[in-house]
Parts: sequence; C-alpha cells; structure tokens
Amino acid sequence: MKRVSVRQLETFIQKTFEAVGIAEPEAGLIAELMVRADVQGSEGHGVFRLPQYIRRIKGGAVNLKPDIRVVREAAGMALVDGDNGMGHLVMRFATQTAIEKARQAGVAWVGVRRSNHAGPASLYATMPLEHDMIGLYLAVGNANHLPPWGGIDMLLSTNPLAIAVPSDEELPVVLDMATTVAAYGKVKTRAQRGEMMPEGWMMDREGKPLLDPRRAAEGFLLPIGGYKGYGLALLIGLLAGTLNGAAMGKDVVDFNADDTTATNTGHAIVAINVAAFQPVEEFKKSVDMLVHDIRSSRTLPGVDRVRLPGEGSYAARADRLENGIPLPMPLLDSLNQLAAELKVAPLA
Amino acid sequence: MKRVSVRQLETFIQKTFEAVGIAEPEAGLIAELMVRADVQGSEGHGVFRLPQYIRRIKGGAVNLKPDIRVVREAAGMALVDGDNGMGHLVMRFATQTAIEKARQAGVAWVGVRRSNHAGPASLYATMPLEHDMIGLYLAVGNANHLPPWGGIDMLLSTNPLAIAVPSDEELPVVLDMATTVAAYGKVKTRAQRGEMMPEGWMMDREGKPLLDPRRAAEGFLLPIGGYKGYGLALLIGLLAGTLNGAAMGKDVVDFNADDTTATNTGHAIVAINVAAFQPVEEFKKSVDMLVHDIRSSRTLPGVDRVRLPGEGSYAARADRLENGIPLPMPLLDSLNQLAAELKVAPLA
Repeated sequence: MKRVSVRQLETFIQKTFEAVGIAEPEAGLIAELMVRADVQGSEGHGVFRLPQYIRRIKGGAVNLKPDIRVVREAAGMALVDGDNGMGHLVMRFATQTAIEKARQAGVAWVGVRRSNHAGPASLYATMPLEHDMIGLYLAVGNANHLPPWGGIDMLLSTNPLAIAVPSDEELPVVLDMATTVAAYGKVKTRAQRGEMMPEGWMMDREGKPLLDPRRAAEGFLLPIGGYKGYGLALLIGLLAGTLNGAAMGKDVVDFNADDTTATNTGHAIVAINVAAFQPVEEFKKSVDMLVHDIRSSRTLPGVDRVRLPGEGSYAARADRLENGIPLPMPLLDSLNQLAAELKVAPLA
Repeated sequence: MKRVSVRQLETFIQKTFEAVGIAEPEAGLIAELMVRADVQGSEGHGVFRLPQYIRRIKGGAVNLKPDIRVVREAAGMALVDGDNGMGHLVMRFATQTAIEKARQAGVAWVGVRRSNHAGPASLYATMPLEHDMIGLYLAVGNANHLPPWGGIDMLLSTNPLAIAVPSDEELPVVLDMATTVAAYGKVKTRAQRGEMMPEGWMMDREGKPLLDPRRAAEGFLLPIGGYKGYGLALLIGLLAGTLNGAAMGKDVVDFNADDTTATNTGHAIVAINVAAFQPVEEFKKSVDMLVHDIRSSRTLPGVDRVRLPGEGSYAARADRLENGIPLPMPLLDSLNQLAAELKVAPLA
C-alpha cells in the first residue's frame, strides 16, 4: 500500500486522459471527479477504473469530443443526450442542469441517455448539497449480474440509488447503495484474497448458496430483501434507463468484457430545492435533530454506536485529504504500466 | 370467509363514515379508495382499517372537515397541507395536483404534511398511469417498529415506496414495498394463527432472531439488506416527512395505540409525464419488451415462472371484481358490530 496526494493523483489521471486524446479541461474535470471517488472511500469507482476506461477509449467505445446537450426540456425536467462521452462529464452537466432548473422549478428531474460509467452514485447525489438542495441519483449499472427473482437469466444490473440531504452542524446524510446484497467488486476482491463469501451474497443456478468467489461465473448476485430488491433494481432501471431511451435489460453492454461497443448508459438526477418547501435553516436544524436522535440510540450488545449513512465516507475523506489516498501495490503497478505505455510520467 | 361485492362494501364504508360526521361526497371518495385497496389484495390497508379509523375519528384525532390546500408552489413542485383530514382525501388531492402540474412541467413532486394514514402506497403511485405518467410515492409509516442499524430504539417506521410504470399490452409494472423484510401486519397474522415466524423477520434486544410472534413487543422488525434497508427507511422519511414539515423519527405517533393525537403524516407523490421524455407509444412498447424478456427468463429449479412486480395485485383485482371481496368472519363480525354501534345497516 502506498499513499499518493490528491494533487498527484489528479495530475496523473488528467495526463493519462490527455494522452489518449481528451482535451485538457475535460481531462481535468474527469480526473477531479475520479479522485473525489477515491477520497470518499469509493475505491471500486475511482482510479481503479482508469485502465478499463483507457482500454475502452482505445477500443473506440467512447466519444472523446462529445456534444453533451439538453434534447428535451420542460419546467421541471430535462433529457440530456451524453453523445457517448465519458460518464463523468455527462453526469456533471446533467447535475448542473438539474440544480439550475430547481432554482426556479423547486424540483427538477433530469434524465440522461447515451452516457457511460460515471463512478459512484453519491458523487452526483451530493453535488446539489452546497446549493442547499437534496440530490437523488439513479443509474442503470454497466453489467448484468442479477436475474429477476426466481429466474436465472441475468437481465438486471445492481442498479444503484443515492440520496443526499443537507444538514446544519451534523454531516449530510448520504445514502449510496446498490440493490444487491454485495457489489460484484466485493466478490472479485474475495477471489483475489482467496477468501470465501458469506451465505446470502450469491447463489448458483440450482438456487444453492454460492460461497466460493472463484466460481462466481457459475451463479449470480442476490438482491436485497429477495423479490423486493429485484423490484427495486427493475424500477430503477425503468426510470434511469427505459424512460430516457437508454439501455436496460438485455440491451445492457457488459463494459468489463467489451471494449468497443457504446453502452448507452442511462442515469437520472433529481435536485430538490429545500427553500421551495420550507426555510432552509429550519430544515437543516430538523435534519440535525433527527441525526442526533438516531446517533443517540441505545445499541445492540457488541455494537459501539449507531452510524448514519455517509458517515464512513466523510471519515475516509478527512483521512485521505490529510494523509493521501492509499493505493494497493498491484493497482499502483498497473497504473504505472499504463503510464509507460502512454508515455506519461509515472504516479510514484 | 364470506365474499361481498365492491358496491356493498363501498356503500357500507361510506355510510359508516357519514355516521361519524363526514359529508357524503368525501365519505364516498374514502370508501372508493379503501375498497380499491381490498380489490387489489392489500387486505391490511383496506376495510380492515375501518374500526381503527372510526375509533380515531371518535377520539378527535382526525379533522372531519379539512381545508386541504396547496401552501407552497413552484413549477415543478407543490407542498400540500392536509389540515389533518383523512389521508385518502389528502393524498387524492396531492396526486391530482402532481398530475396537473406534470402536464406542463414534465415532472412534478408534491410533498404532503398534516395528513393521515392513506392506505397502500400503490393506490397513489398507480393514479398517474391513466394519464400516461409514471407515479412514485413515498410515505412515513404511522408506527415505529424499526431501530437504526445496530440500535435498539425504534426511531423509524417501515417507510414504504411505490413506483408504477405504464405499459402497452402488458400489465403496468407496480412496485409497492415496505423497507422491512416483513410488514408488522404479517407478524400480527402469524400471532393470530399461532404460527412461528421465519428467521430474518424480527430480532430481539439481544440481536437474536425472534421467531415467536406473540413476543413481537420484545423486539423489532429487520430492514431489507441490513444497513441498506435502514438507510432507505431513513432517507424516505427525510423526503416524505422532514422535508414537508411532517412527523419523522421520535415525533411519529403510533396510530395503533393512540386515538386522540394528530399524526402529522407526511407523504410525497411524484408524477412523471412520459411524453416529456419520448413518444408515449414508443415508451410503452419498450416497457412491454422488457416485461416480456423478464417473464421469459429461464427459472430456478422448482419455480414455475418469473413474476413482475404488481402482477399479484392485478390477479387479485380480476378475481375480486368477478367474485367479490373475501372477508374473514372475525373481520366481518367486527364490522357488523361497528355498524350496530353507529346504527348503520350491517354489511352482510
């Protein structure tokens, strides 16, 4: 494990994207958002994805000079066409659009089509916070690992959901969750470490618990709450995918296995302007009070204290801004190998 | 078990509400919505609640002549004050408001405060369907049975979520779920039948599985997906409760135990006008195709076929419209006893 600073990592990512043809300002924006993912502890969605992004860019699957724009619009909504650009750029544009519209409309729902993988869900749900707005983000995942409940054909992804709510003195409340019990990245990590999975993460095609992560390809992830998680994954997909004319169901492209096909990724971001509902300070104090009550709950035996959604990310941020971002050596090696190929200065 | 017709049950409920002072048109509207719950198979949220509603009306907890109105408004949102009226009337008004606004705004989010229990979530999420709109409904439940993850103080309810999406020739897709593995009503039913609960429904204050439903008061419900369901219940509560100035957390009134206090129930209903995003017929055909693909999935051993969210409700509706609504004898007896007290003609 080695620690690198935010600045170092941002520069490295930016230079890497520039080396494959993305213009400097856009490369910088993507780098900033990817590093933000690492800073908040979303390791599976930050610089870890860089080799894959570069591979897909080299494969021609992503548009380096996209014309990202609003193609349909009304007072409370917009539909953004990402022109197959990097997801971070598309979602940044879409979220800014939602925030701008919510100033007037109170609430604005922005759907997105023809985008790409954009990192962790909370990256976009938290953007409205500094404008005293609530953010709600939905997305269609970029690989199907989930069958419908009772089925064995993997027609659904782990379609994530994030909601971020501003507070006063307490930390904002930030939920960021996939609709499966475990994310597929966690399965891969167990396989790398040679560890078994707990029951409840995956099942095989006979419906039996699958515990050996090296056999992951023989089974599928399990949704939270059984048929409820299946329903949630399906409905999130309808809202973030189908409604926007983006890929959903069997049209989803597995971006881990395919380096040449556009994914037509769909997202939705909703900005809710608190001031439209009540005075902002009153609302924030109510959130603080609720957070305080929840944190003060007596605990189960063996539990030190109750946590709020998002707390872990803010703790990771504090640590990483001070001490740098920890990168496992195999990841660092692969990044430096990528740098050598692209004739970019190595990371560390 | 005895079957009664939709007409019979509507008339009975309407007359009962009229007998305690609700005007004829409003009593009729509540009756229609309550029966719709029974027709779609949401037995725990239909006529089963009538004795409780009447008890709370007699206790002075509900306003019989509410001035339900929009108190804040922008292009993409409204805040409705229910003036402590029956939840069905308040949510019917709020949903109509959302639908009207979504015609212009594309998407409209309507928050609700000072309402009451309004029946099953899908009742309101499905109202936009006939206008070729998607409905999304959130609510704060009316009794706290859920502690924050790791805690033992019951600060959260089973805050439900419903999303309904229109289709072409297939049935609409309608998700209606609580954020706990089991609803509290299911626990009560097991207790009445003298049956044990499966592991995973409830735990006791030691964190051990609670299997005997007669001991339910000694423990609490479990959220779906562990900390994820806790987060979902919390964020739904923030959106449907706190944002609207409605009760949330320790302010939630247990409407099963309390017949005299206003609940200040909060809800949110979002209407999404499909036409703002794409031609309605195209969208509906895409939904049909997705539904078809999911229904065609190969199945796990022992599973006859894959089901879509909402399918069960549409099957119940078909049966009940033809054969009447089945009422268990103890429920029928309690309804007829109520009728005798209020000098209303008995149900059957």
